[in-house]
Amino acid sequence: MAKSKVKIKDAFWSKYDALVRDVVIPYQRDVFNDNVTDADPSGAIRNFRIAAGEEEGEFYGMVFQDSDVAKWLEAVAYSLENHPNPELEKEADEIIDLIGRAQQPDGYLNTYFIINGLDKRWTNLHECHELYCAGHFIEAAVAYYEATGKRKLLDILCKFADHIDTVFGPEEGKLKGYPGHQEIELALVKLYRVTGNKKYLNLAKYFLDERGKKPYYFDIEWEKRGKTQFWPGHRNLGHEYQQSHLPVREQTEAVGHSVRAVYMYTAMVDVAMETGDEELLEACRRLWNNIVYKRMYITGGIGSQVHGESFTFDYDLPNDTVYAETCAAIGLVFFANRMLQAEPRGQYADVMERALYNGIISGMSLDGRGFFYVNPLEVNPEACEKNRNMRHVKPVRQKWFACACCPPNIARLLASLGRYIYGVKDNTVYTHLYIGSSSEVDIDGTKVGITQDTNYPWDGKVNITINLDGTKEFGLGLRIPGWCNDAKIFVNGEKIDLAEVTVDGYAVIQRNWQDGDRVEIDLAMEPVRVRPNPLVRADIGRVAIQNGPIVYCLEEVDNGPNLHTIVLPKDAELKVYYRQDLLGGVNVITAQGEKAKVEAWGPELYKAKGCIEYQPAQLTFVPYYAWVNREPGEMTVWVRER
Amino acid sequence: MAKSKVKIKDAFWSKYDALVRDVVIPYQRDVFNDNVTDADPSGAIRNFRIAAGEEEGEFYGMVFQDSDVAKWLEAVAYSLENHPNPELEKEADEIIDLIGRAQQPDGYLNTYFIINGLDKRWTNLHECHELYCAGHFIEAAVAYYEATGKRKLLDILCKFADHIDTVFGPEEGKLKGYPGHQEIELALVKLYRVTGNKKYLNLAKYFLDERGKKPYYFDIEWEKRGKTQFWPGHRNLGHEYQQSHLPVREQTEAVGHSVRAVYMYTAMVDVAMETGDEELLEACRRLWNNIVYKRMYITGGIGSQVHGESFTFDYDLPNDTVYAETCAAIGLVFFANRMLQAEPRGQYADVMERALYNGIISGMSLDGRGFFYVNPLEVNPEACEKNRNMRHVKPVRQKWFACACCPPNIARLLASLGRYIYGVKDNTVYTHLYIGSSSEVDIDGTKVGITQDTNYPWDGKVNITINLDGTKEFGLGLRIPGWCNDAKIFVNGEKIDLAEVTVDGYAVIQRNWQDGDRVEIDLAMEPVRVRPNPLVRADIGRVAIQNGPIVYCLEEVDNGPNLHTIVLPKDAELKVYYRQDLLGGVNVITAQGEKAKVEAWGPELYKAKGCIEYQPAQLTFVPYYAWVNREPGEMTVWVRER
Repeated sequence: MAKSKVKIKDAFWSKYDALVRDVVIPYQRDVFNDNVTDADPSGAIRNFRIAAGEEEGEFYGMVFQDSDVAKWLEAVAYSLENHPNPELEKEADEIIDLIGRAQQPDGYLNTYFIINGLDKRWTNLHECHELYCAGHFIEAAVAYYEATGKRKLLDILCKFADHIDTVFGPEEGKLKGYPGHQEIELALVKLYRVTGNKKYLNLAKYFLDERGKKPYYFDIEWEKRGKTQFWPGHRNLGHEYQQSHLPVREQTEAVGHSVRAVYMYTAMVDVAMETGDEELLEACRRLWNNIVYKRMYITGGIGSQVHGESFTFDYDLPNDTVYAETCAAIGLVFFANRMLQAEPRGQYADVMERALYNGIISGMSLDGRGFFYVNPLEVNPEACEKNRNMRHVKPVRQKWFACACCPPNIARLLASLGRYIYGVKDNTVYTHLYIGSSSEVDIDGTKVGITQDTNYPWDGKVNITINLDGTKEFGLGLRIPGWCNDAKIFVNGEKIDLAEVTVDGYAVIQRNWQDGDRVEIDLAMEPVRVRPNPLVRADIGRVAIQNGPIVYCLEEVDNGPNLHTIVLPKDAELKVYYRQDLLGGVNVITAQGEKAKVEAWGPELYKAKGCIEYQPAQLTFVPYYAWVNREPGEMTVWVRER
Repeated sequence: MAKSKVKIKDAFWSKYDALVRDVVIPYQRDVFNDNVTDADPSGAIRNFRIAAGEEEGEFYGMVFQDSDVAKWLEAVAYSLENHPNPELEKEADEIIDLIGRAQQPDGYLNTYFIINGLDKRWTNLHECHELYCAGHFIEAAVAYYEATGKRKLLDILCKFADHIDTVFGPEEGKLKGYPGHQEIELALVKLYRVTGNKKYLNLAKYFLDERGKKPYYFDIEWEKRGKTQFWPGHRNLGHEYQQSHLPVREQTEAVGHSVRAVYMYTAMVDVAMETGDEELLEACRRLWNNIVYKRMYITGGIGSQVHGESFTFDYDLPNDTVYAETCAAIGLVFFANRMLQAEPRGQYADVMERALYNGIISGMSLDGRGFFYVNPLEVNPEACEKNRNMRHVKPVRQKWFACACCPPNIARLLASLGRYIYGVKDNTVYTHLYIGSSSEVDIDGTKVGITQDTNYPWDGKVNITINLDGTKEFGLGLRIPGWCNDAKIFVNGEKIDLAEVTVDGYAVIQRNWQDGDRVEIDLAMEPVRVRPNPLVRADIGRVAIQNGPIVYCLEEVDNGPNLHTIVLPKDAELKVYYRQDLLGGVNVITAQGEKAKVEAWGPELYKAKGCIEYQPAQLTFVPYYAWVNREPGEMTVWVRER
């Protein structure tokens, strides 16, 4: 499998890779096993032991607690792929064995319902996440099989998927349902791809096609089970909450719970690609455009409000009451990744890169031990404490969450990052991300080695070396990032005319490649002021600083309190320099700005006489993703411009 | 009683007086009687019939539903004082008779507990508003007695107050409680003043002194009744919610539910004045300063968040997620009024005026038929609908509320406005408000007639005429508003040297006044830019326009959509002109501003190249209080300045 042949060796990402391996995976295993005393108990593994009849007790945790184990196993699989670790693999195998023992004779697998009564299974798809957990286990099973060649988990999940296929579908007697939290759709496509069994693809397509038809299945189901609710008030969230308000092909705006939304859109692209369904792909493009042109934070975060963890409306992007869940940005990367598979366009990779380098890794501390669920763009710690509108916004990363979806989701994404670097389409290998790595890509049956050597994102120079036996005619697509105004590419020292070869953000160099061919890419990178669309109420009159793909912020630790009083003059020079000692090594940006003389104002709350006085202030911007890895305090991405 | 001798005849306020009489009072009576088909039912009168045993049924409405009737009766009393209306008085008498029939033999009076079981009375002071409702009925009784000379309601309430005095107090066997929602404290001082019975003052003082002592009464009471809660989650609001976290004398910051807070502070001033308690008065000054220097909107609104309808923290004044309940601004006027009684300082009257002309009357539509509970300073109707943080903010006034505290509160304030114009202290009559009116003021036993003739707030000229038999030596204190930079005063045509006579915002003209003496006041009034303290995060970089006491706003109906894209240059001239045809006759302010060319930006959400382009835009500002009396749409008080 070509996918497994990417080894990351990168100044920026290798640290994360190591963190996932050395800190996150072991820590999460301890949490699942309830061996961490200073974090909320998880009960996730114990639930499986109880379900397997090996321990007495009650189900503990969220109804979707199983999915944490699944995401962990998936992360372990990706990690083992690149870093064999017999001990870890043995632990995973033991958990897989336990999962197998918990599985019911008919294939059913969900510890909540096994423990609380199988008679209740499939009666509340709307709220109870059975298909969601199944989806995560299928993803884990596919990854574990690909990484280790071991079929056990895959067999367990095929059996479960077969069971699900007997329960849901168009045939008489089957339930006409679909998941309350989408996830299984994209997982079933992966299962189809690894097994070749079209039943799984059809089931994914069925779930998507059935969704949003009237009368709504979730209403029918609700009546049928006697109008009981699992989560109080859940029905009030409405059908938009889980994107079941309209048939998926008719949806035009990204609405509702943002993680569900992007997981679903991802599956829609998958199914569209597998079935050649252009109408479905067009719906994906519409939803993509709605997000990236109207509902996305500059960090790649999505979801503007805590209520329903959801999208709100066009250009509504408050920085302080924001949600921007880490998982949602991860889901946006999945969506971008699939759009790139469907059609290699730079804008998809630009957004993928934006989310990766900003709103996703902001979700984890540099030591891998703290996590954000919510990724604000503006924080005043006192407001988080004292104004309830910011209650969900934490001014420091948390150890663990009762609802622990984000940490294992980050882990599985970072551990599989190599899969996002390249894409092969029509005899061309597209380079979506510039990450130091050595890969082996299969082009028409020819193995081509591609090595990237770079200090990205701290500078824009990337050296690529091609290795292959003999020669091979193929296209090498090199992404010209949207943030770059001046790109140069040399092949074996010869400059390429980019105007001639660049299409949709990719310079495609078509040639008969030889072993040892060298490509030098020089992406001019300088700090820039990014301005918002004037319809974004929260950001008007302000700028954000970006350098390459990295979005910057001001922190109190560098700039003192009252960050809102800072002004950046339009003509202030932005200086960039690399600081090895800071935040694991980052480019810092400085500028001569101004800051209000707060003490000169006096005690009045409002004054008709006099203006706020300003004084020069040396401003220090640090990468947004790395905020609050030092002293907690205020932070802002958007700065007033004058 | 001097209080009853003010007749308002004012270009601005007489309309409100008439509205209260002709629209609000009749409408509210119909609501209480459930005769309004297109509003939520009230049940308030029916509750009394049920409590009196004259009708079968269950209690309906809020646990404090009685208080709506009380506030209505109080408004009726004030209205009758100036506008005798035998029919209305008969209706009020009938309701008072009904109230008398509902009263229990021991004096107890609260329809919720009479209907639902007297055994539960006084078991949940924390949540159930018994003392709050008692307070409002006491206020009504005092007002009705003063207006009509009829003692019936006063006797009913004295009997109830006597009963309450047997239940609460320092003596053994009495409950050591105090109200969950303060109100009775200020009412008991009124009852003391009208009856001369010191027991009532002592009880008011007891309630204040007992508050905030540890162990907390509300905890003791909670344990005692078996830890039940009336409002789910109420205990989570904490002791600050009802200002019972600390003894009142030790409180330094305005916290918790803002209406409760200002009602309590008002009573604290009352008790401090009656008992000469300087320590208590000093606490009032501290709390006053905390509000007006750190926690008050420019409109006089208070309460920054919907959660707990409460204050948040210093300088936290969001314009769009604001609460600024109409009742809280009314309570701030009560507080200001009492501080003025304690010590005539212009700053108290400035705040009183600010709240009156802005954040209070904004709570009622110009036709008296619609009401705001929440008074936002910035509204985007789509955000109110689609972003849950603004769910409590209504973009148009509502007919009635299930929790209908604000409409009758506005009615009773407006109907009693004459009481806020003057204050007499130490042989000086202070003019706190400039309102066209004729009054008779008692100075040391001499009746002095004072007539004001003015077009305030649309211009700053006020003519005062003094009428009296013979002559009288006294001081006439004339307020120089904080917003006025250039005041001139003439007595019988002779210019007064204001520098010489002005103390704490009042020009005190001490002389031997004669019948027919004329005072001309000329307060230079021009539109000004008001700027916020730089610590106010929500307003930095923005200005508000004020002209005299009137705060202005931009509305979409005048300025098109996307008000946030508007910029007001620092040097743009602000022109003011009176428009008789608009909004009942108002000063309109225009300026040449700029507005973003939204369509020139293109589809991008973020751009590193190019700035937002602006084009000239004629801006029209209208008085804030009058917003959304035409087409609904966006509104903003604070405008970006360049």
